[in-house]
Amino acid sequence: MNNFTFCNPTKLIFGKGTIAKIAREIPAGAKIMMTYGGGSIRRNGVYDQVTEALKGREVVEFGGIEPNPQYETLVKAVERARAEGVDYLLAVGGGSVIDGTKFIATALKYAGDPWDFMLDPSKAVEAVPLATVLTLPATGSEMNNGAVISRREFDEKLAFHNPQGYPQFSVLDPEVCYSLPERQIVNGIVDSFAHTLEQYLTFDTQAMVMDRWAEGLLQTLIELGPKLVERHDRYDEVANFMLTATMALNGFIAMGVPQDWATHMIGHELTALHGLDHAVTLAIVYPGMMRVMRREKFDKLVQYAERVWGVTGTPEEKAEAAIEKTDAFFRSLGMKTRLSEHGIGQETIDFIVDRFRKRGWNLGETGQVTPERVAEILRERM
Amino acid sequence: MNNFTFCNPTKLIFGKGTIAKIAREIPAGAKIMMTYGGGSIRRNGVYDQVTEALKGREVVEFGGIEPNPQYETLVKAVERARAEGVDYLLAVGGGSVIDGTKFIATALKYAGDPWDFMLDPSKAVEAVPLATVLTLPATGSEMNNGAVISRREFDEKLAFHNPQGYPQFSVLDPEVCYSLPERQIVNGIVDSFAHTLEQYLTFDTQAMVMDRWAEGLLQTLIELGPKLVERHDRYDEVANFMLTATMALNGFIAMGVPQDWATHMIGHELTALHGLDHAVTLAIVYPGMMRVMRREKFDKLVQYAERVWGVTGTPEEKAEAAIEKTDAFFRSLGMKTRLSEHGIGQETIDFIVDRFRKRGWNLGETGQVTPERVAEILRERM
Repeated sequence: MNNFTFCNPTKLIFGKGTIAKIAREIPAGAKIMMTYGGGSIRRNGVYDQVTEALKGREVVEFGGIEPNPQYETLVKAVERARAEGVDYLLAVGGGSVIDGTKFIATALKYAGDPWDFMLDPSKAVEAVPLATVLTLPATGSEMNNGAVISRREFDEKLAFHNPQGYPQFSVLDPEVCYSLPERQIVNGIVDSFAHTLEQYLTFDTQAMVMDRWAEGLLQTLIELGPKLVERHDRYDEVANFMLTATMALNGFIAMGVPQDWATHMIGHELTALHGLDHAVTLAIVYPGMMRVMRREKFDKLVQYAERVWGVTGTPEEKAEAAIEKTDAFFRSLGMKTRLSEHGIGQETIDFIVDRFRKRGWNLGETGQVTPERVAEILRERM
Repeated sequence: MNNFTFCNPTKLIFGKGTIAKIAREIPAGAKIMMTYGGGSIRRNGVYDQVTEALKGREVVEFGGIEPNPQYETLVKAVERARAEGVDYLLAVGGGSVIDGTKFIATALKYAGDPWDFMLDPSKAVEAVPLATVLTLPATGSEMNNGAVISRREFDEKLAFHNPQGYPQFSVLDPEVCYSLPERQIVNGIVDSFAHTLEQYLTFDTQAMVMDRWAEGLLQTLIELGPKLVERHDRYDEVANFMLTATMALNGFIAMGVPQDWATHMIGHELTALHGLDHAVTLAIVYPGMMRVMRREKFDKLVQYAERVWGVTGTPEEKAEAAIEKTDAFFRSLGMKTRLSEHGIGQETIDFIVDRFRKRGWNLGETGQVTPERVAEILRERM
């Protein structure tokens, strides 16, 4: 097992009717900016619950943060928050709203051009306190310090972490998920599954507890997936899904293990260039990553096949079955997992590979996912 | 799944050579009291590593905290810390030293007689900041806010929690465990196993993630047990054991689930009356708890048999096998799991049952472990 440091100070407030508890968690006298997205919270009652809970508090609203939150939108929020003297941010939404709010929180404490800390995340060190009311289980952003921000004018989608960027608290009320469109539920399942794989499917470091916990999350998602596609208004099923999505990216399964994230980096390009949903890009890329990096990931592929999918046979058969079952699982949820199904061809592959070459990126847990292998992975998924 | 609130702010610093990092974690200018036990840290080099790391800092030492830390000893530490103006506590030891240090930290901020908050733990609300260097994986005290304290003159052993009692950081260097006596390793395995069962073997609340994670800890302990009994100086095995013991009682497997703890409460009595090691009492009581509460715990007993032990057969056969395998596992580690093997008889049972009656205690996840059932459980383990 590798040496590690772990600390996650976010307070989780989980369950039915918990939105009512937010006021007592936010310091009296705080000037709050409530951030949200396209307005679904007005239709599903969450907006009313939050404003009811914050009655009598000083609140500024900033709506309209889009999926794959855009730099151009967020800098307007920063300007507005500065003008209003905001000193506490409350993100009400899914991963995009929360990620965008982490950007706002960081930018408010950053003197220069905020794009600086996107290009050099080591510059992101301070943040205005933030908290979240989660409406969409998927990214895990409600209990970590990372965020992914897009900038349209450059076709860029980049990630940063801020040590001060953990939400102070996050409210997870599973009932708010009942009204989500099925597409977002499916995206959340695939996203959580891929997050777990990025921290699990690497090389063996004898991290027995982390392996078991990652496998537990994968098993839970496999068990829940078909049920949630059928309907997502049964409390315990939605609650377990919501908790799984949070646990898949809050550091709890990352202690002492190597991490991959190459699939995410490739996926971000597909979103930046073609506007595909983040989770769709992961469902496309992951089976290709497994196939092309089969030798490097072989031991873990076999373990994953055995323990998560209950596959028997020779190690080679197990590794092959692991790849096929992963693709089949994503497809069973209704995902189109081939580039051609999205009208994407060789031109895009060439563009991405060229961009990675220019950036000098060699990705993955051992830096072996070179631009040439990225080309191979994407060709495999045509 | 039940509603819950989760927050664990302790920073884990895990791995080889990490004791050297403690100085940067403790505020400059702090007046530190370093607490420890019977002196094993002087023999195994930990004392030297800690004092080397704290060179140039103001440090007062308080050694001699005994296993099952005693009120009489701890009040002396409180007196000393007050006299010296101590404002930071560093516990270097196992669960007893850490628990004792939580008592000291709480007492230093408590105006009245400290036994007050042992009898009414709701009075424990403030604490001097504390941190730990763990030398013995077992109790999980390094990453939670609970402590168990004994008072000889009353033959009492009581628990309390303090919301401010989480260590600010805990250093876990697996190499410090190499010199532990085998008995303490075995105790740690059983203790961690029992902690996990207390949060898992209750009634089904559809907490899928928590079930998987608890099962993962149990599987890890079952896999590691025989290896660690053979020898405990192989890094990865000891590291996984150390991490498992911490994860077994830091709230990570307690989200949204009912908890039992009746076995612990009965076990504390056996320690208070006969001086048995804490883990030995758990190994004695748990199989009896499973047998007597078999109906109430039936669904989880069956799941535990299937998933953790890989048992097949009818549900009744699985439940029976679960009980037998648990007892056999403890015995395979060298534990004596019968009261008679420790020279304990009916008189002790009568005393404990009478005491629980006087306290009005009905224990367990549903309050169904009445004094009469405690009698039944202990008779079962004669």
